[in-house]
Amino acid sequence: MRPPMDPRSELRIIGLRGIPEVRSRDDLAQLILTAAEEQGLAFEPGDILVVTQKIVSKAEGRVADLEEVAPSPFAREYARVWQRDARLVELVLREARRIVRMDRGIIITETRHGFVCANAGIDRSNVPGNTIVSLLPDDPDASAERIRSAIVTASGSEIGVVISDTFGRPWREGTTDVAIGIAGLEPLHSYVGVEDPHGYELRASVSAVADELCSAAELVLGKVSGIPVALIRGFAFTPAVATAASLVRGPATDMFR
Amino acid sequence: MRPPMDPRSELRIIGLRGIPEVRSRDDLAQLILTAAEEQGLAFEPGDILVVTQKIVSKAEGRVADLEEVAPSPFAREYARVWQRDARLVELVLREARRIVRMDRGIIITETRHGFVCANAGIDRSNVPGNTIVSLLPDDPDASAERIRSAIVTASGSEIGVVISDTFGRPWREGTTDVAIGIAGLEPLHSYVGVEDPHGYELRASVSAVADELCSAAELVLGKVSGIPVALIRGFAFTPAVATAASLVRGPATDMFR
Repeated sequence: MRPPMDPRSELRIIGLRGIPEVRSRDDLAQLILTAAEEQGLAFEPGDILVVTQKIVSKAEGRVADLEEVAPSPFAREYARVWQRDARLVELVLREARRIVRMDRGIIITETRHGFVCANAGIDRSNVPGNTIVSLLPDDPDASAERIRSAIVTASGSEIGVVISDTFGRPWREGTTDVAIGIAGLEPLHSYVGVEDPHGYELRASVSAVADELCSAAELVLGKVSGIPVALIRGFAFTPAVATAASLVRGPATDMFR
Repeated sequence: MRPPMDPRSELRIIGLRGIPEVRSRDDLAQLILTAAEEQGLAFEPGDILVVTQKIVSKAEGRVADLEEVAPSPFAREYARVWQRDARLVELVLREARRIVRMDRGIIITETRHGFVCANAGIDRSNVPGNTIVSLLPDDPDASAERIRSAIVTASGSEIGVVISDTFGRPWREGTTDVAIGIAGLEPLHSYVGVEDPHGYELRASVSAVADELCSAAELVLGKVSGIPVALIRGFAFTPAVATAASLVRGPATDMFR
């Protein structure tokens, strides 16, 4: 028997093996339910599923074939100077709402969702075919909610779902995973007004728990393991009708436009 | 009996309860060993300890009393305009190597370690006394190594230690925890040259696993729970003589100076 877990002090992060190569129009919730069952995992209330963007985009047909992209003169020139694929540059420009920085072959964009990331979230890895790339889902919150509601219905357990993607950061090397879509849980945990053990009232502390959940999940997912979904058990989240837009800093407080 | 764990697909994050209020010159490794033992936890090879900066700074006497800080005219003027504590502004300037942004009452600094964060990492929470603040450790890698070597000696298990702190990010709301000191493990995991399941060779993927470990730990630590240390079990890290400096992006590739 596993000893009862203290929800405040132990967390488990379990990679879901056995999810097959995802194709357009696949039912992700069903694939996840089947994989969990085969692994002997029954969903419990309070479980959180972290689902990587890649399989969501594939299931939703949010992929593009570079062979079908005609680059503009601007994209061709930038690609020529920095030795990039002009078709990819073109697609990045099309998927971006705003260019934050464009230099040295790198394109930091703001996507139409408001996320600031390299290449508008377009990625060549973990998709079949040499010229196929994945794009971000159109509405990752809706993607998360579709998975959540189907699994709540099938399992009877109220769970949370987070769609994760891998973003770089300024000032720090390496990437971490962050939340681009969310359903069923509050993405931010505010301590404002709460007192620490010394009686000091916290004034500005807000934790981006949805991003931390994605980073935690990435530790079991990796990039080449073929495990695209993780179950996080033991995190006492605040249930909420929520959106990943809460994680996007508005222009008024953005010091790095 | 707990079933054997697949190290590639399950991670446990366990908060260490029972660490007392830390005072200057306390032996952190001993406090951690005692707390783990009281919780029935024996260290195993491959375990990772995430230790929050706050207790490291306290043990090393890296605190300051605002009552003893005489603000410069520059600090006084900035504090007056933005209704901040001039003594805190003064201390931030003294702890900074470079000001990255200074506006709207916010000061984004580069610390002498190279970390870019608000207020040079100075923090008023979770320290006793109304005017006491914590400063970053002088050499957080050395702090991590002291804890690591003492625990390796006492337990016989090769573990990794990461010192975490809570940083904000541009473009995204809320904070996540990141690594400011490291001992015994490689902070970055590179996939460069590795093929994904479709045979596509990854060219730029480097995960900041040390930062992800800190964010994962934060989910059990919280800000007011009085749990300053987490044990992460099941992450197959690369042992290394390492430094958190690897996580700091150099000026040549920094697009947001």
